[in-house]
Amino acid sequence: MEVIKGGSILSPQGFRAGFSRCGIKTAQGKPDVALILSDTPAAGAGVFTTNRFAAAPVQWDRSVLPSDEMRAVVVNSGNANACTGEKGMRNARETAGLVAELVGCRAEQVAVSSTGIIGHQLPMDRLLAGVRAAHAALSRDEAAARGAEQAIMTTDTCPKACAVEGEIEGRAFRIGGMTKGAGMIAPNMATMLAFITADVHIPAGRLSEILASAAELTFNRITVDGDSSTNDTVLALASGASGAVVPEVGPGREAFEQALSHVMRDLSLQIVRDGEGATKLVEVKVEGARTAEAAETVARAVAESQLVKCAIHGGDPNWGRILCAAGYCGVELEPLKVELKIGGVTVFKDGLPTGADAAAAVAGPEVKVHLNLGVGRAAATVWTCDLSKQYIEINAEYHT
Amino acid sequence: MEVIKGGSILSPQGFRAGFSRCGIKTAQGKPDVALILSDTPAAGAGVFTTNRFAAAPVQWDRSVLPSDEMRAVVVNSGNANACTGEKGMRNARETAGLVAELVGCRAEQVAVSSTGIIGHQLPMDRLLAGVRAAHAALSRDEAAARGAEQAIMTTDTCPKACAVEGEIEGRAFRIGGMTKGAGMIAPNMATMLAFITADVHIPAGRLSEILASAAELTFNRITVDGDSSTNDTVLALASGASGAVVPEVGPGREAFEQALSHVMRDLSLQIVRDGEGATKLVEVKVEGARTAEAAETVARAVAESQLVKCAIHGGDPNWGRILCAAGYCGVELEPLKVELKIGGVTVFKDGLPTGADAAAAVAGPEVKVHLNLGVGRAAATVWTCDLSKQYIEINAEYHT
Repeated sequence: MEVIKGGSILSPQGFRAGFSRCGIKTAQGKPDVALILSDTPAAGAGVFTTNRFAAAPVQWDRSVLPSDEMRAVVVNSGNANACTGEKGMRNARETAGLVAELVGCRAEQVAVSSTGIIGHQLPMDRLLAGVRAAHAALSRDEAAARGAEQAIMTTDTCPKACAVEGEIEGRAFRIGGMTKGAGMIAPNMATMLAFITADVHIPAGRLSEILASAAELTFNRITVDGDSSTNDTVLALASGASGAVVPEVGPGREAFEQALSHVMRDLSLQIVRDGEGATKLVEVKVEGARTAEAAETVARAVAESQLVKCAIHGGDPNWGRILCAAGYCGVELEPLKVELKIGGVTVFKDGLPTGADAAAAVAGPEVKVHLNLGVGRAAATVWTCDLSKQYIEINAEYHT
Repeated sequence: MEVIKGGSILSPQGFRAGFSRCGIKTAQGKPDVALILSDTPAAGAGVFTTNRFAAAPVQWDRSVLPSDEMRAVVVNSGNANACTGEKGMRNARETAGLVAELVGCRAEQVAVSSTGIIGHQLPMDRLLAGVRAAHAALSRDEAAARGAEQAIMTTDTCPKACAVEGEIEGRAFRIGGMTKGAGMIAPNMATMLAFITADVHIPAGRLSEILASAAELTFNRITVDGDSSTNDTVLALASGASGAVVPEVGPGREAFEQALSHVMRDLSLQIVRDGEGATKLVEVKVEGARTAEAAETVARAVAESQLVKCAIHGGDPNWGRILCAAGYCGVELEPLKVELKIGGVTVFKDGLPTGADAAAAVAGPEVKVHLNLGVGRAAATVWTCDLSKQYIEINAEYHT
């Protein structure tokens, strides 16, 4: 598997992209509508927020996916179409309906995503005009992919994309993706969204299964502030245009799984690096746990501890706060067996601090926290960022 | 039941207090050792942290409580005696032993508490000298109680005390208490500690039971940053000196429960008001839930959401973030039945924002968030504070 430098959602064959500026996100004319079209019916699958206030587009997508006949995904930023009641549902359906009319398919073959302010109805006149403009602009040019990446941004400071090439039985295939996030759920500019394209041939059910597993270890393992939004969505479309077929089992499936996981991990880490106010990427790896669930619980508790995140922001290798978070998460621990390394430096072992200085290990832009619980063989990794004054500024000074 | 203005741990009869400056917390001679003595054997009970890295004094106290023969509690600030291994345990035992020798009882009749930096051994010479000085200073003067309140402080900006008077079958009784907290777990200056005195007569088992229930609805319902420390402790001593007896059931027990809950709630809210960087006290009340557990889960999710706490800090009645937190906590919700009030203003109902302006309701120092889930009759309240840049400053710039 190889990474495609400068790759995008258009690296795989069989897709076109378009974008437009319809004035929902800002009056200043930044791109805010993106359209991804598969030239032929594609396998489509999604992974969605578990938030009980799931937004209208999420409800729409859940009702149409997985499907072997998906044609398009339409996305707007600036308005999340969440907490918008029945009218919000009609608006999501109408948006899908317009795309269907333009490309010549049924509304159920079109997925919809929205991100932005909660509780406001979409300005449909502007949105539908934007969808028409994005459709008119559909292309395979790199510029179309870059525009689409910008059109889905909210508080992100940079666009986020990734693509790889793999091989199944001698046939090359590609997977591309783009994402936005910046604060897990930024203020009301909620939501993590990710869109994946692939040119393999795969049944939608299988794609759905592989996508869910990959999301579990990538997008579901990152945390900026622990909040998960009303709109979180990962959508994948597989066109089949490369001729490579993903089999039910065996090395071909593994090659696809590995490539998809790579793209999704890369996109996830781009989100964390661009977390609101973030200055450091923090990897929390827990090993030696009795179960994978226990390892994940401990890793998540450490990664979500405000005190740990503040310490790392301040360049302080504060082992006490890390152990404290591990200690209160409810997982049974044996303190005498726990070993903690920060950036490779063992700071706690045999129930006592070692006295080793790990200050250099938290000084840089990437910090590794490795905790070995010493009671089993299960492991889990969670990624997070530090917590800075700028996070408070962004989130306290943003008004509804 | 009446609140005793300026009341303290010495409001109840049968207790003396002492304090000293032994130089563990600061070289500048702030009080850092406190001693509470019951003149006769008292009922003693405790509620402790569930953190797996429970500190040595917590382990000691768990081994001696509940007991009908407690005589004293000795506390130091500046060093938590946590993550200190076998030597830490010996030091806790030795501290209890010295108090026992001074007052003429067994070490098992003395509880020990510590708060401060984690992972350093106690400087025993200084501590034991401080314990002797605190014992020599034992008194019923108000100054002794005030000194003890200061001796347990770490990053607290003010001492915290409360006392009430109640009546059982015509006999007056009193309950007093002091606490420290300031950041749930402040940096390494970890820990919430609370010490309660009462002059009722009550078996230790009954006291333990009532204390645990009261803690569930008071100290366990406050959150500053969601972190719970290695040293969290609530200790209660009942001297019996008033002659009032707490019966197993009936109005007498209820009078005691009510008075104890009042003191504990008052102390808890003092901690939240003094939360690190806090400028507002936030009450999150959830009603209309199917179960008390569901109500508490939703209330806690809202109270622990960084985004909600930032919004309130910024004076923003951001209903979207509150609903979002309720939506992701795992409790089954029916969005159309949920009603949200901020400071009495209904901002969300029937699945839609009402458009009402609640800005005034979040402008002051006390903010009330009331969420009715509309599916049952269970309720729960959690208290928290806002999240400010000062919190980050305190916690990022504090070094081990």
